[in-house]
Amino acid sequence: MSKRVAIVGVGMSKFGEIWDKNLRDITLEAAMYSIFDAGIKGSEISGVTIGNMSAGRFTGQEHLGAQAVDQGGLGNVPSYSVEAACASGGAAVRHAYMAIKSGEHDSMMVLGCEKMSDVNQTEAMNTISVASDWEWEGLFGATFPALYAFMARRHMLEYGTTEEQMSKVTVKNHANAAHNPWAQFQRPVPLKVVMGSAFLADPIRVLHSAPVTDGAAGLIMCSEEKASEYTDTPVFIEASAQAGDTLALHDRDDICTMKAVSISAREALKRTGLTINDIDVFELHDSFTIGEIIITEDIGIAKKGEGGKAIDEGLTDIGGKFPVNPSGGLKARGHPIGATGVAQIVELVLQLRGDAEGRQIDGVEKGMAVNIGGTGATSIVHIVGR
Amino acid sequence: MSKRVAIVGVGMSKFGEIWDKNLRDITLEAAMYSIFDAGIKGSEISGVTIGNMSAGRFTGQEHLGAQAVDQGGLGNVPSYSVEAACASGGAAVRHAYMAIKSGEHDSMMVLGCEKMSDVNQTEAMNTISVASDWEWEGLFGATFPALYAFMARRHMLEYGTTEEQMSKVTVKNHANAAHNPWAQFQRPVPLKVVMGSAFLADPIRVLHSAPVTDGAAGLIMCSEEKASEYTDTPVFIEASAQAGDTLALHDRDDICTMKAVSISAREALKRTGLTINDIDVFELHDSFTIGEIIITEDIGIAKKGEGGKAIDEGLTDIGGKFPVNPSGGLKARGHPIGATGVAQIVELVLQLRGDAEGRQIDGVEKGMAVNIGGTGATSIVHIVGR
Repeated sequence: MSKRVAIVGVGMSKFGEIWDKNLRDITLEAAMYSIFDAGIKGSEISGVTIGNMSAGRFTGQEHLGAQAVDQGGLGNVPSYSVEAACASGGAAVRHAYMAIKSGEHDSMMVLGCEKMSDVNQTEAMNTISVASDWEWEGLFGATFPALYAFMARRHMLEYGTTEEQMSKVTVKNHANAAHNPWAQFQRPVPLKVVMGSAFLADPIRVLHSAPVTDGAAGLIMCSEEKASEYTDTPVFIEASAQAGDTLALHDRDDICTMKAVSISAREALKRTGLTINDIDVFELHDSFTIGEIIITEDIGIAKKGEGGKAIDEGLTDIGGKFPVNPSGGLKARGHPIGATGVAQIVELVLQLRGDAEGRQIDGVEKGMAVNIGGTGATSIVHIVGR
Repeated sequence: MSKRVAIVGVGMSKFGEIWDKNLRDITLEAAMYSIFDAGIKGSEISGVTIGNMSAGRFTGQEHLGAQAVDQGGLGNVPSYSVEAACASGGAAVRHAYMAIKSGEHDSMMVLGCEKMSDVNQTEAMNTISVASDWEWEGLFGATFPALYAFMARRHMLEYGTTEEQMSKVTVKNHANAAHNPWAQFQRPVPLKVVMGSAFLADPIRVLHSAPVTDGAAGLIMCSEEKASEYTDTPVFIEASAQAGDTLALHDRDDICTMKAVSISAREALKRTGLTINDIDVFELHDSFTIGEIIITEDIGIAKKGEGGKAIDEGLTDIGGKFPVNPSGGLKARGHPIGATGVAQIVELVLQLRGDAEGRQIDGVEKGMAVNIGGTGATSIVHIVGR
């Protein structure tokens, strides 16, 4: 039914603790790589959308759309900043998708960025809590590790999920990131080290948790008709779907599932006429490894309660039936909040083009990204294909 | 050429220093008034877009889209938060316009909000500076009053604009706000008082400047086809246009003009086939009164340099040829940053429906809103008609 939108260029800054560059530097880096990759002229870009959660607190700068246009030398084109907590990047992709489908824009640059390491750890933790329900969660000390610990503990109780399974997600994602030159942690980590790492909030350990990261990612998107002007290997957004849920975790009937994820994934699949078995590669939101386990269940890779078993059986390994997070995911590629949802799509595009080098999955035709905000109050799903 | 989008409901919270309510309360208030006004069921709203600049700093809460859906009891519908500094409200309107035009949404609730009075004045001033180029302006002490003072001083030098003319804008807008029950300052202010008020940054005085305000505004928008289900008096967005400019003022060739305003206003008029003479009512961004003078010139109400003269001649009074800010504008209605662009459209809808009571302009068919971010790094123009 719906007109497809093409992705004709991708780019990333290095993810990590980037001490020698500021937010505008790393954002410009991702923008420039994307522009070079697409071979597009700046004058052909009719708008910029940027996903970011909290630059106002992390760096003192909002109005990032205007800054990106300014830094990129793009003149007087309109720019849009969008925010949906940790799903800000996915929201930027969806915004540009709608802007192109609406006919208001022909071709857009989509950016995601966050510079998190310029504040101290206390301020970083407080700032991350803007994504939760501040007045009913954050203010009372329920940090994100604590909130995900509730989910993990309940999942363990209901379904027998183990700490080892949560740790194996980390091992898998680090092993994948070892082949990703943009990743924050390009090295494997042994299971024993993960399971021996310090608790943040029992049963969540530090190595079950995505790090504090600086980074930016970019895409050049255009209408299907214009794609051939820029590339012989366009990737298409075949569906974009989004759903929401209560902001606070305690308002949900069941904290072992993310209802917004199941609704948005089902909707995206419906729009493409595909089933989950048709998807060859997944980038799923593993801000905490229990999150990856829950999401694999909610999108139908595993039955509810069997996400842990899927890890044990290697189902989500690069060589498995449903490879999840070949990039290393949020855990090992890093999680610069606003950049994550864009970086997920960058990885899918590289996989579909066959450009993912040491982490390439064979014969990839379709990919799915699931980018969530908070503990699942927002879920944005994109299905891409070639 | 373009499909129109309908506005079928409007609502506002009271604007002012709202000590007994928090951000979610005032946002919900605007949402509920909008829903009641449209007579729409919550289940018929397929998405929510919210414009806000910096709730992360003002209140500790981001992810406002999810919060609005949650507070409104709207279940699992998707939500979007957009930011473009002081143009965040206009950006929300434009986002929803594109979302509906794209076919992704049938009917949307658009909200704009800001709760600015919960922080001290120093923090409020610093937070407002996130809209400027923080590293090259704000950080060096160039606050917004200072930046607009540069523009005012130059405009006085180039064109002979006077402090009295800037003050008369205040007098006009306060006189209008006296008839607006939602306005922060519902009282006239004599010219002598304006001209005797303290300097913020010479020649900008405190009464040339919009206040710190809490407030929220809302719209219900839907496709043209569905409008008749909700109202007999729909107002249509006939054009939405946006342009950008350098983030920092010092990077522009001419600081007596806002290039983004002239580009976006011209584009909006072009899309409707109208000229400026066809517009019956204007809501223009008077965060500082020199801003209103410059914008009247940039959109073609007055020739460049003659915006001050237009004020002297009463051209922009309610009874004049080009009535500007019948609501009281940012100066007197108040300027809760993210709410402003939405509130401008609320006022135009009331004027087009004939519901603007003591400030009603006769025979209004078309209205224009100009919402800018920073010193004009973003300009968003909407033309509405009935």
